[in-house]
Amino acid sequence: MIHYPNGKKTKPSIDRKLSASNRGMTLENDLNLTNDYYLQLDIANIHKKPTPVQIVTVDYPTRSAAKITEAYFKVPSTTDYNGVYRGKAIDFEAKECSSKTSFPFHSIHEHQIKHLESVLRHGAIAFVIVRFSKYNETYFVEAHKVIEAYYGVKRSLPYEWFKTEAILIPMGLRPHVDYLKVIDQLYLGGKHETENKKDRK
Amino acid sequence: MIHYPNGKKTKPSIDRKLSASNRGMTLENDLNLTNDYYLQLDIANIHKKPTPVQIVTVDYPTRSAAKITEAYFKVPSTTDYNGVYRGKAIDFEAKECSSKTSFPFHSIHEHQIKHLESVLRHGAIAFVIVRFSKYNETYFVEAHKVIEAYYGVKRSLPYEWFKTEAILIPMGLRPHVDYLKVIDQLYLGGKHETENKKDRK
Repeated sequence: MIHYPNGKKTKPSIDRKLSASNRGMTLENDLNLTNDYYLQLDIANIHKKPTPVQIVTVDYPTRSAAKITEAYFKVPSTTDYNGVYRGKAIDFEAKECSSKTSFPFHSIHEHQIKHLESVLRHGAIAFVIVRFSKYNETYFVEAHKVIEAYYGVKRSLPYEWFKTEAILIPMGLRPHVDYLKVIDQLYLGGKHETENKKDRK
Repeated sequence: MIHYPNGKKTKPSIDRKLSASNRGMTLENDLNLTNDYYLQLDIANIHKKPTPVQIVTVDYPTRSAAKITEAYFKVPSTTDYNGVYRGKAIDFEAKECSSKTSFPFHSIHEHQIKHLESVLRHGAIAFVIVRFSKYNETYFVEAHKVIEAYYGVKRSLPYEWFKTEAILIPMGLRPHVDYLKVIDQLYLGGKHETENKKDRK
């Protein structure tokens, strides 16, 4: 029997993560890998913002290592992802949806909608990426369509709505979720000039 | 005597903050207020990114409130501030300098320099804001100048360097640190068209 230095058995700290990886990658992981790919190949510089946390207490057990011992999650006031691509500011939110029939609006905060409206006004390319996990389909939805629907009567967007109003993002190995391809087509007049130079599918 | 609902006397939660406000606002506070001002007047949408934290343990004392009980600060892989202004992606780092004679490069991480190089290549307006606290002077330094100097021989930038190579940012009550004025002049051909419409000094 193996004795671990701290006397504890090793076990995955968060079981949910493990089970998610068994079912297939989460949207967040896919997007992180995709953004890493874009960064490595110098195609774009887009990052996920850190999770906003209210730090209350910090301990300093050693001089070098600060340990946060009390903190709370804060409600995000912006979207999760932003950056720059082909001279344009990029801003988006990503949501995973477990329903087969509709995407509920309560999963987007109202100030995230306000934020999308604001960055649109200032000239960013803004959108929402929605994955229907049950179908393993990932959609690119232009921000103005989400905003319009959000202020409408409905409390959710039917799956069928995405079939007509959104764009299915090509999925692959590298990059996993090639949303910049959609941006090239929708906003930037087709192919990126460096696309043939780079090893990009 | 006033009895507060929770039975506690009100007191500032972090004493360090109080003493800082006595000495004058920190650059971070100034920039947060400035960005709030830009946001409220719909001039720009620029935010500080949350501090990156590695969350290890989360407790759920009640169903609604998650409490983080173990977490660590991570080294940031990007700059602290970004957003969008007049159709341009904005990206910058802000540093306070307590020395009277020079700004030491060790206060900027190498991957932050790499990040600035990357966003410049992709078309962002990128820069570093440096405050010499002792003089209460806040400088706007174009990213390409910081990058060039960083890879040079010197390990710090003399205060005199800022006098010739950087631009002193106008300070005021509202906004506190009007760095967009510098951007208007340097990159966007002068005054913002909405400047006269808005109540902006």
